[in-house]
Amino acid sequence: MTDILNDPIKALTEYVSYPSVSADPSFLEGIGGAREFATARLEELGFSVETIETPIHPVLLATRGNPSWPKLVIYGHYDVQPPDPLDLWTTDPFVATEREGRLYGRGAADNKGPQIVHMCALYRALNQNPNLPIHITYLIEGEEEIGSPSFRPFLEERREQLAGDMLLVSDTGSPGVNQLVVTTGLRGLTAMEVKLTGPSQDLHSGVHGGALRNPLQALVQVCSSLHDESGKVTVDGFYDDVIEPQQWEREELEKLPIQEEEYKKFLGVPKLSPPPGYSALEAIRFCPTLEFNGLGGGYQGEGSKTVIPSEAFAKITCRLVPNQKSDDIARKVKSAVEKACPDSIQVDVEVKGGGDPYVVIPPGKPGSNGQENELMKKAFSILEGCVEKQFGTKPIYLREGGSIPIIRDLQEVAGLEALMLGLFTNEDNLHAPDESFNLKIMNRAIDSFESFFLKLGE
Amino acid sequence: MTDILNDPIKALTEYVSYPSVSADPSFLEGIGGAREFATARLEELGFSVETIETPIHPVLLATRGNPSWPKLVIYGHYDVQPPDPLDLWTTDPFVATEREGRLYGRGAADNKGPQIVHMCALYRALNQNPNLPIHITYLIEGEEEIGSPSFRPFLEERREQLAGDMLLVSDTGSPGVNQLVVTTGLRGLTAMEVKLTGPSQDLHSGVHGGALRNPLQALVQVCSSLHDESGKVTVDGFYDDVIEPQQWEREELEKLPIQEEEYKKFLGVPKLSPPPGYSALEAIRFCPTLEFNGLGGGYQGEGSKTVIPSEAFAKITCRLVPNQKSDDIARKVKSAVEKACPDSIQVDVEVKGGGDPYVVIPPGKPGSNGQENELMKKAFSILEGCVEKQFGTKPIYLREGGSIPIIRDLQEVAGLEALMLGLFTNEDNLHAPDESFNLKIMNRAIDSFESFFLKLGE
Repeated sequence: MTDILNDPIKALTEYVSYPSVSADPSFLEGIGGAREFATARLEELGFSVETIETPIHPVLLATRGNPSWPKLVIYGHYDVQPPDPLDLWTTDPFVATEREGRLYGRGAADNKGPQIVHMCALYRALNQNPNLPIHITYLIEGEEEIGSPSFRPFLEERREQLAGDMLLVSDTGSPGVNQLVVTTGLRGLTAMEVKLTGPSQDLHSGVHGGALRNPLQALVQVCSSLHDESGKVTVDGFYDDVIEPQQWEREELEKLPIQEEEYKKFLGVPKLSPPPGYSALEAIRFCPTLEFNGLGGGYQGEGSKTVIPSEAFAKITCRLVPNQKSDDIARKVKSAVEKACPDSIQVDVEVKGGGDPYVVIPPGKPGSNGQENELMKKAFSILEGCVEKQFGTKPIYLREGGSIPIIRDLQEVAGLEALMLGLFTNEDNLHAPDESFNLKIMNRAIDSFESFFLKLGE
Repeated sequence: MTDILNDPIKALTEYVSYPSVSADPSFLEGIGGAREFATARLEELGFSVETIETPIHPVLLATRGNPSWPKLVIYGHYDVQPPDPLDLWTTDPFVATEREGRLYGRGAADNKGPQIVHMCALYRALNQNPNLPIHITYLIEGEEEIGSPSFRPFLEERREQLAGDMLLVSDTGSPGVNQLVVTTGLRGLTAMEVKLTGPSQDLHSGVHGGALRNPLQALVQVCSSLHDESGKVTVDGFYDDVIEPQQWEREELEKLPIQEEEYKKFLGVPKLSPPPGYSALEAIRFCPTLEFNGLGGGYQGEGSKTVIPSEAFAKITCRLVPNQKSDDIARKVKSAVEKACPDSIQVDVEVKGGGDPYVVIPPGKPGSNGQENELMKKAFSILEGCVEKQFGTKPIYLREGGSIPIIRDLQEVAGLEALMLGLFTNEDNLHAPDESFNLKIMNRAIDSFESFFLKLGE
């Protein structure tokens, strides 16, 4: 073992320095750099690391320990979101910078920081007990931010190697440095891109305006048909399979130390807009969405240009809740888009994939089916104690709004249920400019996981 | 006089080489180059040229001749549209290139080519009759493609200098090389930019989706409320002041050697979409529009990014017909946009100006008020003959869809009615990639205007 995992800030700074944007092929070098960094750290921890090629970015599969020991699988991703809009960053997104107890940089919180937490904690635990009797499998992929298209086929191919007792993940959120959350559910996702084509080329809006349908006009007509004024999704059958949250879930949510007023202020909006019948904090956990992530077409520059563009596009993702299915919702939205498009405009909907929602009932909570294995029962209980000791409060158990489709895949393919401790917060600006990781949470979490690993091996 | 106006292609090639994009401040050098080129040509024609500063791009005001002679004012603009999307140009937009009887380049047809036509014709006419007894005032502005914001104040300041008998303009279209059009009306224009602001920064659509209104969702809601499904504009009072075309205008339109089927093929659309009650060829002349020239917001790059953006925008222009007023329509659209925007989103509508529609009744046509002056009667009649001789057919008299707000301004401020001979065609790709100017039209038009100037001086 070398020293880099002995210095979490140094380790995270180097990890951030590789611009591993998976969505954009021009960042291939950064993707490679981040992957090599993660490989080197795992090797220094004593893992034997395999780099498995996929159609896009390779997966790291690493193991240590005796196969007869209880089997823990740890998941992370070495890829990050695109950094744009670049001009809204205070400092270079790929030069990690410490300011006021935070380390700023793209990927600092999502997911490089939490990976460094696990690795540094494991580094310390293994220093104290080099023969820690837990068989650990590390899975670090490079396509999480583009919906993990290669991960499911990879899992199916390596199904036997991945069989284990439990999955550990820190790629979810918590309210803040005094209150962590164990995430008990994740929304599913389905992504698609709509492309509308009108005239064969851009046209002068004076010379031709009035003769033909503008694809931007069709775009707003199509997109606006997908919600009603209250914000509810109007796609046929969209809510058919949605099931209501359990009573204990609503009760846990009440423990959340965040008020709606405070949340509104954090978002910077004059008014929250949850769908009818839900509060905003419920909506992000228990309700599905249909969100426009990008719309465009026509003149984008300074000033005006009197053009009827040839093309327009919409990038759409839906967040799904139990028991919606990603494929089913994609099919329904695609059909609604095609139906809403006027026949003077050509419409193409490309489904980009996604994943189904995931729910785990923590051992002991109502609704638990009593089928949890020993490692899982032990792990949830130990982690609760370790977190309480370092953070001063027990974690609360909540579903969250984000999606990690592969959690569901690991459950389906390898039978693994997930223990997810959230380490980033709203203030960390995930997927946005000035992303950062809270260093107090980082240090407390390393201490928590150090005891966790040691106790899990007892 | 030098030789450059003796070689129209050489002259146009040099004029195109100055990238005089008025919408984008980074093209200031090109704007200056084009202005100096035009100044030099006018000086070579014997004009005394004044460069008049405005808040944006200066206007050239040039005169020749005896103030007691009949007074002709000639208008043109030295600015051009932005060249993007650059990747759709076959050759560099600012390196004029001849292919198959056309000269390709941004501004080749709009409006540098037609200016070169007038100048080369005048060069030849003055060579034959240096004392041609017409007082000519040249007005060449640099803000036409951004709606001529400085032109009206300039006109009001120089009102006396501009007083004259008639305006000559070639900044309109014709069906093709065998049929020219004298444009008898232009649509007005009003331009605005809508900006919607939601959260104070871009947000993760998983972590926060469902809690707040996405500004892109508001954008499509607002924009889609401005038309009904048939394509009619639904803004309150939008059509209030629209007057029906006269019978002779419909009859002239029937002479147009363009079929709807052919036009549809040219546009490359599966179906034309005029508003109810009009054909497509009527709609572009006689109906107002509300057109989205650019929409945007959120992730614009490759792949997907699960973001709720902070901002969204729409660039809107309306084309207006008699007797709609630019200010009135801007106010009505602004109000409709503000009303349609949900209260969870901040909306800002910036009105960028425009101009009222223009109509001239050619001397002798029904509806003419008999107040035409001698120069105007003579000019319409002479030009008809010169065009018939060179092009084989008389011009037809039609309103067209484009806007040249300053034509209306010159009428209001200086009392000038316009004789507008269209020299560009649909195939010239105005405001689009691969703009070009038909060299056969250019040569025939130079011959036509050479006789026109000489006969006007008889």
